[in-house]
Amino acid sequence: MTTTKRPQVCVIGGGTGTAVVLSGLKKYPLDLHAIISMADSGGSTGRLRDEFGFLPVGDLRQACAALSSDKNDGLIAKLLLYRFSPNSSLDNHNLGNLIFTALQDMTQSTSNAISAISKLFHLQGKIYPVTEDDIQLVIHYQDGTTEIGEATLDEKHGGKKISSISTTPKAKLNPAVAAVIQQADYIIIGPGDLYGSLLPNLIIDGMKAAFKKTTAPIIFIQNLMTHYTQTHNMTALDHVQTIEQTIGKKVNHIIINNGKISQNLLNKYEQQHEFPVVDNISNHDSRVIQANLISITPVIQSKDSVKRSYLRHDSDKLAKEVMSIMETNRKGKKS
Amino acid sequence: MTTTKRPQVCVIGGGTGTAVVLSGLKKYPLDLHAIISMADSGGSTGRLRDEFGFLPVGDLRQACAALSSDKNDGLIAKLLLYRFSPNSSLDNHNLGNLIFTALQDMTQSTSNAISAISKLFHLQGKIYPVTEDDIQLVIHYQDGTTEIGEATLDEKHGGKKISSISTTPKAKLNPAVAAVIQQADYIIIGPGDLYGSLLPNLIIDGMKAAFKKTTAPIIFIQNLMTHYTQTHNMTALDHVQTIEQTIGKKVNHIIINNGKISQNLLNKYEQQHEFPVVDNISNHDSRVIQANLISITPVIQSKDSVKRSYLRHDSDKLAKEVMSIMETNRKGKKS
Repeated sequence: MTTTKRPQVCVIGGGTGTAVVLSGLKKYPLDLHAIISMADSGGSTGRLRDEFGFLPVGDLRQACAALSSDKNDGLIAKLLLYRFSPNSSLDNHNLGNLIFTALQDMTQSTSNAISAISKLFHLQGKIYPVTEDDIQLVIHYQDGTTEIGEATLDEKHGGKKISSISTTPKAKLNPAVAAVIQQADYIIIGPGDLYGSLLPNLIIDGMKAAFKKTTAPIIFIQNLMTHYTQTHNMTALDHVQTIEQTIGKKVNHIIINNGKISQNLLNKYEQQHEFPVVDNISNHDSRVIQANLISITPVIQSKDSVKRSYLRHDSDKLAKEVMSIMETNRKGKKS
Repeated sequence: MTTTKRPQVCVIGGGTGTAVVLSGLKKYPLDLHAIISMADSGGSTGRLRDEFGFLPVGDLRQACAALSSDKNDGLIAKLLLYRFSPNSSLDNHNLGNLIFTALQDMTQSTSNAISAISKLFHLQGKIYPVTEDDIQLVIHYQDGTTEIGEATLDEKHGGKKISSISTTPKAKLNPAVAAVIQQADYIIIGPGDLYGSLLPNLIIDGMKAAFKKTTAPIIFIQNLMTHYTQTHNMTALDHVQTIEQTIGKKVNHIIINNGKISQNLLNKYEQQHEFPVVDNISNHDSRVIQANLISITPVIQSKDSVKRSYLRHDSDKLAKEVMSIMETNRKGKKS
């Protein structure tokens, strides 16, 4: 009998997309490592960040909820995601954000707070802030203008082309993240806001070097829709190339949805100038896996000031495709 | 070999005193049942109660913290008792109070919220609100005046003699509490504010009947100090008689501190017109157990608007005396 080591899977992102990937993958025998962007500056998170001066907690909260047990009808996730009424003195805050803020204050470090919350709620995976530096995103537009703060990506400059992003100050990669990437058997990037969630991890100083060292296959999960203030008119190829230029190497697998989005939802998105990402690679790129990945669970819009998407990847369908890639690679190695 | 059923111990109270008893007793093989007053209306609790309209959560939070695991350096208790800065927008709220409020909102019942938090944090005992009715305390003074709201006991009428308390509206006993009292092997009352924590349980309609039905020995733990706005000039006998008149029967054991309180602390209390409860029963009442019960751990004063005591019972010393009463009774039954 041989004991097989559980595959080490590293998921890079931040917001809802990463939470979807984690909730799906936690049902499989994998060691999950979630690397989370620290550039978030909007909503409840942004206000806590401004007031208490700790690193942003919203994306960490979502990752925690995703990695919590499904027992008791998902009580832990529900608690972490609970939002107080915008009309109350608790002013639309997420309870999970408040728990994180308290733990940051108690332990005086975001990594310690994550470690405490992981013990407390018996999380089924590890979570790492991409950096422990207190940073703001700087968005550089092709017209030469710049904006500071991730939150501006939710509010302004619809349709304006982003040329690159950076951080202020320049941030150092969390050493634990470098180690995780080096030891990973698989690295998953996305789905998620390209300039708001994914690149804020990938541009951190030291990340390119970490990618250079790892031999782990990289799986890129393509977003379903363009984002008017970030990726307007960007095709699937544009997304892939932006990622590849940033990490300094090719991705090995690209998962793209081919499921049909309802006309009703398309109309809603169209009103916000947002459209399905045009798939201009599937028919000539052998790295692409196409599947129907649309979640049929309706997304309940929060009353937060931050706009959320109506449409999500289905966590189980997505996890199935990821597992299928791993299975194919395993068989390939054996034969 | 006989398997012995763990003794069912029912602790009645509310605030810090009850938390001290529970933290001490949880280290022994007992089934603990904490019955908690629902009259609290001050501080963070009072504000949440006013705003969200749920039952008061502060005393429940303290009981939860006391019944939580000591693992990870008492992380759960620390988290539940964490208080946000009074200078922040979270305005001196206890995190535990916010967690309770969220769970009350999510489950639409205080009992369900307790059940959720018990599962979530693996509490080592059960907690019951004495009533599920939304009540305010009515304080009747000997001079014929009345005040409404438990919080007034923290603020006003120093030295004024209370003749009785009631609730508005009249409240029904939580049926689970009646069952717990009937099945108890021991009932512990106190320590705690006589009119602010203990009697708000004992006066609830149905409580006297529950006490009539139970054969469990009753242990009363005498407070260390008088409280200027509640028990000014009241002796140990006054305390005992007030309890006995309310429950309609004699208590079986009375635990009284005989440890010396430092002059420094006595001076602090004297400035607030508060003094050690005069022990006018120990030398003629065989029910009394005297012991040094003073905690030597300094009490850190919170920045809450609610005044807290400087002096506490020591949870381990107190638990030892309770266990010794049980052991003596067990031997007495055997012989």
